[in-house]
Amino acid sequence: MGSIDSMSESTFPSLEDVRAAAARIAPHARVTPVLTNSVLDERAGAELFFKCEHLQVGGAFKFRGACNAVWSLSDVEASRGVVTHSSGNHGTALALAAATRGIPAHIIVPAGAVAAKLANIERAGGIVHRCAPTQAAREAACAQVQRETGATLVHPYADPRVMAGQGTIALELLHQVPDLDTLIVPLGGGGLASGCAVALAALARHVTMLGAEPAGAADAFQSLLRGERVTDIQPHTICDGLRATIGEPNFILLQSHQVEVVTVDDDATLGAMRSLWAELKQTVEPSSAIVLAALLKVGERFAGRRIGMVLTGGNVDLDALPFAK
Amino acid sequence: MGSIDSMSESTFPSLEDVRAAAARIAPHARVTPVLTNSVLDERAGAELFFKCEHLQVGGAFKFRGACNAVWSLSDVEASRGVVTHSSGNHGTALALAAATRGIPAHIIVPAGAVAAKLANIERAGGIVHRCAPTQAAREAACAQVQRETGATLVHPYADPRVMAGQGTIALELLHQVPDLDTLIVPLGGGGLASGCAVALAALARHVTMLGAEPAGAADAFQSLLRGERVTDIQPHTICDGLRATIGEPNFILLQSHQVEVVTVDDDATLGAMRSLWAELKQTVEPSSAIVLAALLKVGERFAGRRIGMVLTGGNVDLDALPFAK
Repeated sequence: MGSIDSMSESTFPSLEDVRAAAARIAPHARVTPVLTNSVLDERAGAELFFKCEHLQVGGAFKFRGACNAVWSLSDVEASRGVVTHSSGNHGTALALAAATRGIPAHIIVPAGAVAAKLANIERAGGIVHRCAPTQAAREAACAQVQRETGATLVHPYADPRVMAGQGTIALELLHQVPDLDTLIVPLGGGGLASGCAVALAALARHVTMLGAEPAGAADAFQSLLRGERVTDIQPHTICDGLRATIGEPNFILLQSHQVEVVTVDDDATLGAMRSLWAELKQTVEPSSAIVLAALLKVGERFAGRRIGMVLTGGNVDLDALPFAK
Repeated sequence: MGSIDSMSESTFPSLEDVRAAAARIAPHARVTPVLTNSVLDERAGAELFFKCEHLQVGGAFKFRGACNAVWSLSDVEASRGVVTHSSGNHGTALALAAATRGIPAHIIVPAGAVAAKLANIERAGGIVHRCAPTQAAREAACAQVQRETGATLVHPYADPRVMAGQGTIALELLHQVPDLDTLIVPLGGGGLASGCAVALAALARHVTMLGAEPAGAADAFQSLLRGERVTDIQPHTICDGLRATIGEPNFILLQSHQVEVVTVDDDATLGAMRSLWAELKQTVEPSSAIVLAALLKVGERFAGRRIGMVLTGGNVDLDALPFAK
């Protein structure tokens, strides 16, 4: 835990922050339903509880963290707006969250973003700034908007307000499903995993937590293996929501809470996505379906368990369905 | 109402039958969730409450009627099994319902049935008998199974036990959504519309009920227009669940309850299906999506209303998605 001590306390959310986030977002966010399905239960050999964050405002869980960040600002800060860089769901979420407070949201969008997600950002009233698809270009564009407008940066995952907001999913799910013993979440930058880890560690230590990470973007897996944050992996995965590099505070939280990471090939993710469409009847995106693929990969260890599966988003280009046939 | 008097009382379900059905199926069927979506509300200019029967056991509302029929049988009747002819969802539903009582289900399947639905019947343990895709061939095959096994025929819609089971949807929805003022259901053979009409007439007379029927299979629309049942229409529609001819008791119930029928072109249905996938994130079949298309067609009359929309099923061939581009 030495590394936690070396960072500022405000870098990490506490259970109280997660609880405060739940109260702050309650007027704006949805309590999403939990779906079950006997066919998928049989296939997995366990009881699965799908937390439907693709039915959250904006079609993704990201609204929780963005909304908490927007409503954490003082009136003066808020009046100058917010800014972020996001390939999609976080950008939409921040635009929608800003709209609930009537403030501007600047969204830096790298070239190559999924068309459906870009359309969502614009529909939500976000002010789109395009940039080249590199981390450096994103950060430069972001810094420029901050200089020009005084907008507050709301990072997609390495921000304690965002992590606390995402952690409200675990609070809700513990309330909705008695005797949960496992939670599987998709793992990209680590905002969702961090927030949920904090909530579970405080409220339900017996719950095992798994992060599902694309094999082609396994920086969190490598980071935990080596004991230091790996930042030089070039992501190659169809899971466009999980290409981000694990954040520094996120890495530290995952490490200290001993979150296990399961890496998943895209083919397995697409097979799981097909199952979720065909059986659960939910149009989830690949970055969501990876949780089912991860469970099927490690299945036997979790036989008979009661497993929460966070379906994080459903923003898919219907004109370019990536099913493996 | 002269025509109701001329048929046996047991031909039509009463509110008490619907209530008895609700109690009978409760241990086996799901109380399906109701979803809302602000984007679709805005597009329709009304408040929409989507009753998610594609999340019912077997992926379609048909389980309610089939389950009620199966559990209405005496032990002796039940031991001989049940039989039906169905292009899909009712067949699966009857097989699943029979399984809850441990009795055989014989399903007559006409050539050309949707592959996903046929696979569902077999997976549910139904005993499949194939026949030519004509009404005469179905009925002959059905009669033969009845002669050989003594199985009870459970007609997909012209059966009061089935109608009563489908009517439990209206009971549930009235409980889930306060101040509902309109209900839109897909219209094929008329089992769902009949059961819901009975329940609404007894419990919520102020609720306007619309049936959404494919323009290419508009026998109910024509029947109500002419005041007599039209049975010679050759269906041409992508809505494979709505190709059946309106049943005799169903026609009489729709007529006496003054259910309004809206006919919908397949293109409009496919557009609505796309919207339901993209916005509501639900993989519903065309025969479900027709309710949204019907509302958008008659939209202005229903501006500002609180409208229940029954999404009846979600059994789609993912390899043959029929989106109009």
